[in-house]
Amino acid sequence: MIPAMPTFGGIDLGGTKIQAVIADDEHNALGSARRPTPTSGGPADVAREMEIALRDAAKAAEIEPSELAGVGVGSPGTIEHGEVTSARNLPGWEGVFPLAATLQAALGCRVAVGNDVQVATDAEFRLGAGRLYDSLLGVFWGTGVGGGLILGGRPWTGRGGAGEIGHVVVEIDGARCTCGRRGCMEAYAGRAAMEIHARRLHEEKGRKTDLFKLAAEHERPRLTSGIWARALERGDKLAIQVLDRAVRALGAGIASVVNVLDVEGVIIGGGLGVRLGHPFAKRIAEEMHPHLFADSRPPHVHVAALADLGGAIGATLLMADSLAQPPSS
Amino acid sequence: MIPAMPTFGGIDLGGTKIQAVIADDEHNALGSARRPTPTSGGPADVAREMEIALRDAAKAAEIEPSELAGVGVGSPGTIEHGEVTSARNLPGWEGVFPLAATLQAALGCRVAVGNDVQVATDAEFRLGAGRLYDSLLGVFWGTGVGGGLILGGRPWTGRGGAGEIGHVVVEIDGARCTCGRRGCMEAYAGRAAMEIHARRLHEEKGRKTDLFKLAAEHERPRLTSGIWARALERGDKLAIQVLDRAVRALGAGIASVVNVLDVEGVIIGGGLGVRLGHPFAKRIAEEMHPHLFADSRPPHVHVAALADLGGAIGATLLMADSLAQPPSS
Repeated sequence: MIPAMPTFGGIDLGGTKIQAVIADDEHNALGSARRPTPTSGGPADVAREMEIALRDAAKAAEIEPSELAGVGVGSPGTIEHGEVTSARNLPGWEGVFPLAATLQAALGCRVAVGNDVQVATDAEFRLGAGRLYDSLLGVFWGTGVGGGLILGGRPWTGRGGAGEIGHVVVEIDGARCTCGRRGCMEAYAGRAAMEIHARRLHEEKGRKTDLFKLAAEHERPRLTSGIWARALERGDKLAIQVLDRAVRALGAGIASVVNVLDVEGVIIGGGLGVRLGHPFAKRIAEEMHPHLFADSRPPHVHVAALADLGGAIGATLLMADSLAQPPSS
Repeated sequence: MIPAMPTFGGIDLGGTKIQAVIADDEHNALGSARRPTPTSGGPADVAREMEIALRDAAKAAEIEPSELAGVGVGSPGTIEHGEVTSARNLPGWEGVFPLAATLQAALGCRVAVGNDVQVATDAEFRLGAGRLYDSLLGVFWGTGVGGGLILGGRPWTGRGGAGEIGHVVVEIDGARCTCGRRGCMEAYAGRAAMEIHARRLHEEKGRKTDLFKLAAEHERPRLTSGIWARALERGDKLAIQVLDRAVRALGAGIASVVNVLDVEGVIIGGGLGVRLGHPFAKRIAEEMHPHLFADSRPPHVHVAALADLGGAIGATLLMADSLAQPPSS
């Protein structure tokens, strides 16, 4: 079937999962699929899983990938001309990989690649919780902590590397971050760092916790957002403590950025942000407050309205935009 | 004499000094004057000193204030429609004061008021060390630490309160800031906080220092930038330690902002920034480096090229702009 209106594919490449979606030109999801991100191998293996996820979503939407007007991709790492360099939290991705060209050949349609966090922020700005605002900070709290910016109604990407809110310093000489630096917000709040910290408290300090037992029961190789949420529901003290520490760091780091940029809205997304939802967005806002310089008019803090699909929907927007404009990186 | 081309006045209202300048329409200084900022009284007393400083500068330039095309003012605090609210580091300025109207009546010419740090950043962007860049962070290191932003060639002021880089958190639960919060960059790097810290180390911990003796010898009621510079020249160990701590905080805080905004250039201005000059700008760049996420392409770090006159020259630009455009706040 050839649809009358253009149909787009979108793929969100995360540190834990690959989310694919097929959307019509009004951004309604016609089908979606999800696969775990490979934990070993290299970029080609990741690209192969992305292809399968997109094909699964296309099957659900009853369309052939080659019939799509194009597929957008939100990817971590530095993106230039469809090539992705040093994608954090992905296996063996230190060098440059031609992701757009690889997927284009595999799927038989146009592919545009953008920064994962920026496309998700753009989706929240245009379709989600940020629709009411002209300036916006998107905070994607998952394996790492990424940030996206809308300033004056337009994405701000700096020289291409803006938005690294996870590496705002909240403690000089503080905890070691998974990036190798010290005291980054992500060293306290990133799920990868939280797992390392919880394991150290459990194995080295003998602290009791059900976190790792829950992960084993649910056959999860890592402490996923769902595992953290379950541990919280059980009142697991160590999980509560590690999350408190994460929320404190998020409060300080986000407040720092708000003090500098004075944005109208803050959107909390990402795996943990979406899973823990409104109660945690409220707690983050509370932890921001003592650090806000203009504390009489704090920004509005919301959970990402597009939830888990935001990144993939944002990727379809990227593709639609790239068809409407002359091609760029 | 009535000049053929419009001539502008500019006043930079700082926590320590009031700097006034008269400039031609190519931004060349025709005359300047400086007075200390009153340490007691209220906004009306400050406005009176600003008037005298502007009159002194006009006398040096052989022009009457009423002959000026207008006077621009860079002021701390929140600025709306020429009114200034809660100007930090100024005596008795908690409420709203109609600064533009007061100076307009006193000087007999138009007055436009803008944020001190933003006008100084704009001056560096258009005439100074930031001319080569399209995106810029101005860091004004003086009594406090203020920040100004140029993003995509235009000032970014958020909802009117952007640029509070002094209150980026570099240490959760860290040192008490003069703003009342904890762990702000300014709590380590602001000259007011540095003086409090040095005095505590000297008086309570018995640490030796010439800082206060130097201030007394030079009849300074505070540890001015010049006193800090002299103490450094003498190898004063406590002064070196307090400045090291300040530079570390500046490195972490500025790097945090660069990680989020990925600007091309950072300009270090303000009383201490200008007085300590290139060697300290270099040290700040070195302290930023371990915290930069994209450390292979750090931003360019410069000392403010317009030095002490940047704020006042920026204020003349503000006035010239406000004549070229319909009036706004």
